[in-house]
Amino acid sequence: MDSVSLVKQILEPRSVALVGLPRDAGPESRNVMEYLLRHGYEGRIFPVNPNCPEILGVKTYCSVRDLPETPDLAVIATPQHLALSLVQESAEKGIKAIAVVAQGFADADAEGGKRQQEIVSVAHRYGARVLGPNTFGAANAFLNFNTAFALTPMRRVPIGMICQSGFPFAGFPRMVVVGKALDIGNTSDVDFSDGLEYFAGDDQTRLVALYVEGIRDGRRFMETAQRVTARKPVIALKAGKGVSGARVASSHSGSLTGVDRVYDAAFKQCGVLRVEDTEELVDLCRAFLALPKSRVRRLGVLTMTMAGGTMVADACEKYNMKLPAFSEDTVRKVAALAPPWLRIGNPLDQGAVNFSGAGPRKAIRVSLEAVLEDPAIDAVLVIIPALEPEHRNFRDVALEMAARYGEKPVAFWIYGPDFDGSTAADLESTGRIVNFGSLDRAVRALSRMAKYAEYVETRNDE
Amino acid sequence: MDSVSLVKQILEPRSVALVGLPRDAGPESRNVMEYLLRHGYEGRIFPVNPNCPEILGVKTYCSVRDLPETPDLAVIATPQHLALSLVQESAEKGIKAIAVVAQGFADADAEGGKRQQEIVSVAHRYGARVLGPNTFGAANAFLNFNTAFALTPMRRVPIGMICQSGFPFAGFPRMVVVGKALDIGNTSDVDFSDGLEYFAGDDQTRLVALYVEGIRDGRRFMETAQRVTARKPVIALKAGKGVSGARVASSHSGSLTGVDRVYDAAFKQCGVLRVEDTEELVDLCRAFLALPKSRVRRLGVLTMTMAGGTMVADACEKYNMKLPAFSEDTVRKVAALAPPWLRIGNPLDQGAVNFSGAGPRKAIRVSLEAVLEDPAIDAVLVIIPALEPEHRNFRDVALEMAARYGEKPVAFWIYGPDFDGSTAADLESTGRIVNFGSLDRAVRALSRMAKYAEYVETRNDE
Repeated sequence: MDSVSLVKQILEPRSVALVGLPRDAGPESRNVMEYLLRHGYEGRIFPVNPNCPEILGVKTYCSVRDLPETPDLAVIATPQHLALSLVQESAEKGIKAIAVVAQGFADADAEGGKRQQEIVSVAHRYGARVLGPNTFGAANAFLNFNTAFALTPMRRVPIGMICQSGFPFAGFPRMVVVGKALDIGNTSDVDFSDGLEYFAGDDQTRLVALYVEGIRDGRRFMETAQRVTARKPVIALKAGKGVSGARVASSHSGSLTGVDRVYDAAFKQCGVLRVEDTEELVDLCRAFLALPKSRVRRLGVLTMTMAGGTMVADACEKYNMKLPAFSEDTVRKVAALAPPWLRIGNPLDQGAVNFSGAGPRKAIRVSLEAVLEDPAIDAVLVIIPALEPEHRNFRDVALEMAARYGEKPVAFWIYGPDFDGSTAADLESTGRIVNFGSLDRAVRALSRMAKYAEYVETRNDE
Repeated sequence: MDSVSLVKQILEPRSVALVGLPRDAGPESRNVMEYLLRHGYEGRIFPVNPNCPEILGVKTYCSVRDLPETPDLAVIATPQHLALSLVQESAEKGIKAIAVVAQGFADADAEGGKRQQEIVSVAHRYGARVLGPNTFGAANAFLNFNTAFALTPMRRVPIGMICQSGFPFAGFPRMVVVGKALDIGNTSDVDFSDGLEYFAGDDQTRLVALYVEGIRDGRRFMETAQRVTARKPVIALKAGKGVSGARVASSHSGSLTGVDRVYDAAFKQCGVLRVEDTEELVDLCRAFLALPKSRVRRLGVLTMTMAGGTMVADACEKYNMKLPAFSEDTVRKVAALAPPWLRIGNPLDQGAVNFSGAGPRKAIRVSLEAVLEDPAIDAVLVIIPALEPEHRNFRDVALEMAARYGEKPVAFWIYGPDFDGSTAADLESTGRIVNFGSLDRAVRALSRMAKYAEYVETRNDE
């Protein structure tokens, strides 16, 4: 079966067999059927458990052999010593996609690695493919489908996640990333490239995120990733960088992490954006989903504190972003409102402009509009405190502008303790503005967007 | 007047003259008296405004000359062209601490620089000292005192902030840092060293934070800082690192930013912890205030996802933290509950231990207690999803442990979208546990704590 069809069966199954489903339900039961029903999955579910006639009111089957049809996907969630024979039964039944949940294979020791290899061999003998072992399986918010043995949140975000761990299923601080997710676990068989092939052509996915410990088939990965990055951004969090991380990764996903700079070079070559940590991953997902995908190197900054201007200038040097002079038109418009002693520069001391007589709303509108129309500027960063009345003035004007100027990204850093998050939430409700946790993070995310835009341009020039 | 007495008059004034106080109140009025009254300041306030007999029901004075007493502090918040004569009047009246709020001095141009110098000269002629110009003034949450011309939040956190900008008065995402804050603005006279002398001996301050663009008197700064760091941590956010940042800083605080690596070396020599951005500043403040100040280099990790283990190992290599093997006792205690295939390592796959029969609460208690008692481990980092029931189990056990084991820092990374923040809030309500935004940030903060502890030890050895 080709990768696209295979992953389609895993991520969009019309029917699923849950093998080794526990009898109990409720917290700590790890009853995947309960979770599937709570999520509202509408496909057919076949619970398999030889020890009880029904679970949660659904008739169980003693064995996969007894199922009335061949489901798209089998999820085998038994202790690991039972997995091999159940994989064999499933494959014999004709099931082509088989997820093995248990740990204790290549992640445990060489013995476990052998057992893992046997499982794959048996599956392949029948033309079946193995997801995992050591996997949460798959999730697809668009179908309310999720095989994780925990009630993990899903949102219909256009993010496709391929991960050698279940942790992205839980989401990250500030973001549920699981629109669709494929946990390839120990990656004994189904791998990154299979997932990438599927996401390349998936219209529900605008961005692909990877959690990588080790990639086995580097050449195929690069070829596939290159096809995806031509169409949508691929972001990779690669862990297991050094000796210590490599040791842990081998006991986690059984991965060989490889030499870190080889990954750096490979990602770069195929246009995959490598991020340093989970926060950068989330920042970049939010930026790509919310902000228009224009060139963004030339940043215009409006700030209520010039300390923010100094810090943003530092960040721009660090991340190779530009703070060009505003065009004459912009300077003229702002100068008409500003106090005479103010140098109208970029970053613009909007605090001084605001307190100059025209009233802050008018001052903000004039400055923001001028910068959004300035041909020397690609993207705008606004720095404001979470204080009344400043943040309300900026919010209102920014919301108005976001509706009128859809083509230039607008990012914010709100630097007070906006404890209830309401200003940030209002701004982000437009789907066009992102508030970042710090100036460094804002500039970093914009610079990565610029990098991706430049990569795509270069590709198109070739 | 010595620095301590001077800064005491600024931060703990028994009386304050507000010169150039606007008649209006309410949002956008910048009426500092209104804010002082709302904060609940109990000192005497003398509003000075020649154009109206009373403001907010308080009798105004036409001039500083008419005040019935000599207040500890004068805050001159007029347009800048009026500042010089009002500083002179205040100094003639005998006021020794004079804050000048207006922008447009050394921050604007050479002309402004000269005017700034005149102000200082006039003040010094009368034995007075100048805070700013271009300053929010001072804030002291312990006295409900705050001269910022915006209603900025204060909390009685034991943080003393000295800043060349008013922005820290607004606070940061996740934290109000203003216990006491001194905005030295353009730093024409009162400078970092004056503030440091005060905070060195101030019992309400356990930690000093600096926002620096440029330090003029390097030698005095280093001598003073060294005295402070022997007693409490000093954290510095130094901005204006490169060419572009230097340009902005000069138009912000009129500072010469200097060569960045000179600051690096100077901070290092006097034990000042330099942070990269506002997030690290907040992380470090939270860590120092909440966590016991022990050595923390040898980290023990309990994690619900071994991906977290891999990422934390990467972070430990990056920040020179250690992940030593657990002692035999710990391994034995955990192994008694763990599945046989599990290698009991550090990081510990607590997910595997939890799902092994004893029940997650018991498993968490056994592991956490063992690691907290393990002599090979200095500090504990716990990695959990914001999912039921895991985070509740960990929270309950961690709260219990925090009460029993006060001497080892316990940090968390909660990696799901804990949208309401309740788990983190519960954990942090102990005042002994900190939840960080990412593993990188958790390890970075702990490593900076370790660095400080080692610095103090070295000093004590000398």
